[in-house]
Amino acid sequence: MNNANSFSLGIVGLGTVGLATIKLLENQLDNINKKSGKNIIIKAISAKDKNKSRSIDINKYDWEESPLKLTEREDIDAIVELIGGSDGLAKELAYSSIKNKKLFITANKALIAKYGYDLHERISKIGSAIYYEAAVAGAIPVINSIKDGLVSDNIISIHAILNGTCNYILSDMTNNSKSFADALIKAKELGFAEADPTFDIEGIDSAHKLVILGLLAYGAKPNLDNVYIEGITSIKSEDIKYADRLGYKIKLICIASIDNNKLDFRVHPALCLSKSISAGIGGALNAVFLEGDYSKKLTFIGEGAGAEPTASSVVSDIINAAKSNKFFNNFHSIKNELKYKNIMSRVGKYYLRLLVSDKIGVLASITSILDENDISLDSVIQEGNEIQEEKYIIILTHDCNELNIINAINKIENLDTIIIKPHLIRVEKI
Amino acid sequence: MNNANSFSLGIVGLGTVGLATIKLLENQLDNINKKSGKNIIIKAISAKDKNKSRSIDINKYDWEESPLKLTEREDIDAIVELIGGSDGLAKELAYSSIKNKKLFITANKALIAKYGYDLHERISKIGSAIYYEAAVAGAIPVINSIKDGLVSDNIISIHAILNGTCNYILSDMTNNSKSFADALIKAKELGFAEADPTFDIEGIDSAHKLVILGLLAYGAKPNLDNVYIEGITSIKSEDIKYADRLGYKIKLICIASIDNNKLDFRVHPALCLSKSISAGIGGALNAVFLEGDYSKKLTFIGEGAGAEPTASSVVSDIINAAKSNKFFNNFHSIKNELKYKNIMSRVGKYYLRLLVSDKIGVLASITSILDENDISLDSVIQEGNEIQEEKYIIILTHDCNELNIINAINKIENLDTIIIKPHLIRVEKI
Repeated sequence: MNNANSFSLGIVGLGTVGLATIKLLENQLDNINKKSGKNIIIKAISAKDKNKSRSIDINKYDWEESPLKLTEREDIDAIVELIGGSDGLAKELAYSSIKNKKLFITANKALIAKYGYDLHERISKIGSAIYYEAAVAGAIPVINSIKDGLVSDNIISIHAILNGTCNYILSDMTNNSKSFADALIKAKELGFAEADPTFDIEGIDSAHKLVILGLLAYGAKPNLDNVYIEGITSIKSEDIKYADRLGYKIKLICIASIDNNKLDFRVHPALCLSKSISAGIGGALNAVFLEGDYSKKLTFIGEGAGAEPTASSVVSDIINAAKSNKFFNNFHSIKNELKYKNIMSRVGKYYLRLLVSDKIGVLASITSILDENDISLDSVIQEGNEIQEEKYIIILTHDCNELNIINAINKIENLDTIIIKPHLIRVEKI
Repeated sequence: MNNANSFSLGIVGLGTVGLATIKLLENQLDNINKKSGKNIIIKAISAKDKNKSRSIDINKYDWEESPLKLTEREDIDAIVELIGGSDGLAKELAYSSIKNKKLFITANKALIAKYGYDLHERISKIGSAIYYEAAVAGAIPVINSIKDGLVSDNIISIHAILNGTCNYILSDMTNNSKSFADALIKAKELGFAEADPTFDIEGIDSAHKLVILGLLAYGAKPNLDNVYIEGITSIKSEDIKYADRLGYKIKLICIASIDNNKLDFRVHPALCLSKSISAGIGGALNAVFLEGDYSKKLTFIGEGAGAEPTASSVVSDIINAAKSNKFFNNFHSIKNELKYKNIMSRVGKYYLRLLVSDKIGVLASITSILDENDISLDSVIQEGNEIQEEKYIIILTHDCNELNIINAINKIENLDTIIIKPHLIRVEKI
């Protein structure tokens, strides 16, 4: 440990976020020191390749070839991990930091989603702390808000749009009538989507962030197997068009709530009312909608990614760590013992897209199956597409049970008039 | 001081917020203790009348007849002031708390707007702390977000809707085509407006909150004389209607930013694009739109008042105080020495409502005066009202200088055809 007035960092990873973090610290050091009450020092840095050309001068800092050695150095108070990945070096750094009683600051959602609960357990025994504001919703101070601002609330529900890639693609499909494939190509060109976008478009990245929020809000041990995860790859431009006509926009939504004493955690596309705030969250923005028993409904909107917004959150963690704002949470609350709700017991409205042969009685045969399964209809749109023998039938149901609509779809699917597997999208009130 | 594991409160004021705060502490004590790492104790309470009938049992707490004595008691760590008013007892409590090295927690915006800077100066010498999350935007953790979440950012601008009364009235006028007077009556009936609503509808309450945000964001010493303040009493239902037709909603907006090295602080009604998030902030909601150089644009929306949302913020302050999250800020930054910008040097779009005699050439005479003053027009609406001899002319300008449009209005006002003083509303991009 250094003297009480200084706070020394070991920064691992010099990608875009690492460089932006160092630049922010360099440019704002006076302000940051005043606000934290400490003299913050970048003591040492480490990355894969020392000799890579970089936009900052790294020679003013100690270079450490082995990142893990940073966690053992007595002159370092906190490790800032900005390399990513749930296992490998990032995991080793986290555990070694805690073992050596260093504070640990990370922007790594995969790591916290997988090991956050265990890390917190170790910390509570050892008296260290971890900070991960940047792991969820980039610049939006939602972690701080849940742990400090809303610390006294029972959180009733969290609804969120947490993946900028998906939100960019869905916005582009909505605003420019693009297909999913074309919007994905554009997202890659603009750097909003990775070369392999699976992690984002299949909803996995969103689910990582969701279980971190669930950990904080409900003390629920992160477990992706318990979370229903559905991505956006099946959304067609027709869905966007018909949803719009029915007064909705389609968003990839993360939900965490407690329903009938069960944890209801899920990630899937949903129709949100066009006039709602959630529908207006465009491009690569993120949004978090929290409802607390005392705070009531709160909405946070901001940049979910990007080097500078993420660095802004990393530095806020550095300052909180320097101020020794330790992170207590009741992860051992009873709620952690709650079972997870199965998606099949969801009750709500559904949007159903059917492609049918244009024959007499086709709508009647579909609606009679829905009726048999206790599903009543809110709206129906039936119209032809370019191939005159085929028609789209779009159905918006009233509230019904997911099990019933799945059963109905299984029967509808077997009708001779059904051309492709019916597509279902949930409707959520946000 | 108590022992290191306990944190004792003296609560002053048992109005709706005081009672909600005590109830929240009582109901959530286990969670709150786990999250703060301290054993939080309501040691003593004080209010005007001990014997008033209340929804909680106050007999389990010490009753202190003189609130100021609480600040001297050795067994109390923090004073929670929930009585209100910028002077009198609230002020005495604040200064006496700090003198006696107690932490001071308040929901009192008028107090912090008037004495917050001086209180911070004293605290910085004495090593105490004050907390006032509940003073601005009720349940929205905006104070915490500026001081912790965005602590490393340079804040470029703050735009905010901070007065629930005005927002309720404007929303009611918009949604139900009401006059200002009728909407105000309804707001009083529903408890959204005080019997004497001057403080709210004239924009003074908003200005108090704005200068607190300005203090935190820019270290700008609060001074209401430097803030341009205009309320909503001159907004007519016609303005709402024509604004809507032009694609805008009218909101009471608070703005704090730095423009050309001058502080631009103001409160006034403004036209906001109907499709913007700000236009969708309905009823008694509050919203804060922040732009930081690293965090980029962040939006916070939530309940701005009400007993429970306010109590939620008060308790978050109690927990932060218990965790000794002290409040450092660079109030002595250079920005405090910046001059304030005069409203006359604003550059932007303007909405102008004119009531004119229906004579030939009236529009030509108006537009020629605007033209002489370098004001070009975006849109013009001219149409009759019930009295056929009178017509409204609504003008939306392109960007121009406020001084120019005021000069133009002074000339237009003298035209024979002008029936009432022209009304000007600024257009803001939010």
